[in-house]
Amino acid sequence: MSGTGNGATRELRMREIVEQARSKPARFRDAQITMAHGAGGKASQSLIEGLLLPALRNDALAPLGDAGTLSLAGSALAISTDSFVVTPIRFAGGSIGELAVNGTVNDLAVSGARALAITLSLVLEEGLPASELRAEVDAIARAAEAAGVQVIAGDTKVVERGHADAMYACTTGIGAIDPRAQLSPRGLAPGDRILVSGSIGEHGMAVMLARDEFSLEADIRSDTRSLWPAADALLAAAGPDLHCMRDATRGGIASVLNELARASGVAALVKEGCVPVSAAVAGAAELLGIDPMYVANEGKLLAFVAPHRADVALAALRAVPGCEQAADIGEIALEPPGMVLVDTAFGGRRVMDLLAGDPLPRIC
Amino acid sequence: MSGTGNGATRELRMREIVEQARSKPARFRDAQITMAHGAGGKASQSLIEGLLLPALRNDALAPLGDAGTLSLAGSALAISTDSFVVTPIRFAGGSIGELAVNGTVNDLAVSGARALAITLSLVLEEGLPASELRAEVDAIARAAEAAGVQVIAGDTKVVERGHADAMYACTTGIGAIDPRAQLSPRGLAPGDRILVSGSIGEHGMAVMLARDEFSLEADIRSDTRSLWPAADALLAAAGPDLHCMRDATRGGIASVLNELARASGVAALVKEGCVPVSAAVAGAAELLGIDPMYVANEGKLLAFVAPHRADVALAALRAVPGCEQAADIGEIALEPPGMVLVDTAFGGRRVMDLLAGDPLPRIC
Repeated sequence: MSGTGNGATRELRMREIVEQARSKPARFRDAQITMAHGAGGKASQSLIEGLLLPALRNDALAPLGDAGTLSLAGSALAISTDSFVVTPIRFAGGSIGELAVNGTVNDLAVSGARALAITLSLVLEEGLPASELRAEVDAIARAAEAAGVQVIAGDTKVVERGHADAMYACTTGIGAIDPRAQLSPRGLAPGDRILVSGSIGEHGMAVMLARDEFSLEADIRSDTRSLWPAADALLAAAGPDLHCMRDATRGGIASVLNELARASGVAALVKEGCVPVSAAVAGAAELLGIDPMYVANEGKLLAFVAPHRADVALAALRAVPGCEQAADIGEIALEPPGMVLVDTAFGGRRVMDLLAGDPLPRIC
Repeated sequence: MSGTGNGATRELRMREIVEQARSKPARFRDAQITMAHGAGGKASQSLIEGLLLPALRNDALAPLGDAGTLSLAGSALAISTDSFVVTPIRFAGGSIGELAVNGTVNDLAVSGARALAITLSLVLEEGLPASELRAEVDAIARAAEAAGVQVIAGDTKVVERGHADAMYACTTGIGAIDPRAQLSPRGLAPGDRILVSGSIGEHGMAVMLARDEFSLEADIRSDTRSLWPAADALLAAAGPDLHCMRDATRGGIASVLNELARASGVAALVKEGCVPVSAAVAGAAELLGIDPMYVANEGKLLAFVAPHRADVALAALRAVPGCEQAADIGEIALEPPGMVLVDTAFGGRRVMDLLAGDPLPRIC
């Protein structure tokens, strides 16, 4: 998804990107909202940094983390909220109900907090068959049970036919931050190993295939699942040597790495050949012209671990059901600050930038 | 909005309603979702009791309260969530941004909890002018400051043009339950006085007028505001003699009274002539054929207070800015259980039932 020009233009592009990374925060200059503002890439960043944060800024709002924090009666709480507008609402391996639970549970998990409770707010489209609603409420109940959380408050609104797509869901999760967790986007240190908890790109591809826009058949199922067991295993294995975790949802691992590199002023160096991608995802991605690095996951995290604990952490991760394919995919470096570089299988090195647009809209 | 037939059919209707109130929970039998399921009346009740609760039921989920509860490190927390789909997003006296903050702050307030923090999740429609988004984010920031809460986590999604109306917002609030609060929908006792914190119907009417569907001009502004000062004053004045509070949003005070009467198996007797309604709201309601008792408020609560503390509580309430018109509008009685009766200005008595349909869709 990134340029492969000759050495000189590549160098120019690099300088430009480094400059951009240093001149934060991004400014919001658009006259209106576009789909790109919801894609998790550059436009999303400018919306958040240029419009939302300046108005709402406070100490607890964590623009660069997955959850806000709140100290209450001596307890450190993590709180996260997410809306889900995936279309279609059902796809191979899951549905909006599971996403709504797991997405929020996972934002807490990578913040080092086990979800204790979630709230559920639904916007339903007039005409939604009761059977579809029932199926999603059951999916929510099952996913909540699997993740060990209770739904403790809810709300339902209805909008006229055509003013939503079947249903939108918003979940908010609350959890106690684990005392073992010393995580921060700014905790990344040169030499840190980058671990991924499994093969990438399944969720986004499963949703794309469910849309039937492409005459493409492939056995790809969403990876939606609770990441708390993976986070728990990493916290146990690496303790304070686990510097940061992120779940790689909208925008895929490429976007997460870019956000973190930008936030911490370090570089992420990824070995493309080490990144686990299933043959089915790789094939579908090639046909669609999409780099799997940018495709959303709903049950995969990236962990940044001090080098001397990386092997232990990786072994612990691989012992978690669903994380058998976890891999060490690269490392954090000092230079070039704010950037993500990929060593390709062919021995080249390319910049893996944030996307400007959105190749896969509304996958969560 | 309720039948005014002769004595015999009225008696039959009463028996039917009482029976219905006793045969809870309501069952969900509809084949698909209709606007009525979002109206806060009978259809909403059947959706909640017949479909959502059976799947999600747990001890903390408070189907009849405004907030769920969670005990954490010795602290009792109240948590509430709400989606806002009001159309148009701006109206006299407020906008979706203020509603999104105050609606959630108020659900906590009437649960006896001062909001500490809220989360904000936005679903934006592609093409939304940036100036409109900026205005709403500013409105959110101002309302949060006025209510003394911080926005500690957020999320933004974008859907294609026509798949939402400008924006939908979901807020979730978290607060610590005040030690003075001993509130429960089941706390209502015969003899309890029913207090309302001010004149009713302004919010719903302001939104209706903003729609320009009626060639009706009236100076009616939404009453959107934080109810914590009112709740705080009542807790201070009445302590354990304050048995329950509810904010009278969707479905107005009629729906809140019905829900509570049904939940507690008591009757609510309301003196119509004591309910404060501004001349403008009364006039507009008459022209539109809508009973103000069913019209939404976004800054009014009902409080149920033991009779010997009612005068003190009312005086305390009236001392709160914005609550100068607070009034004692009736009392709780044993019979007929589960019902709301209104003594009209003409000396008659009628049943004020839950509405089946929705005369004012999408007012919050």
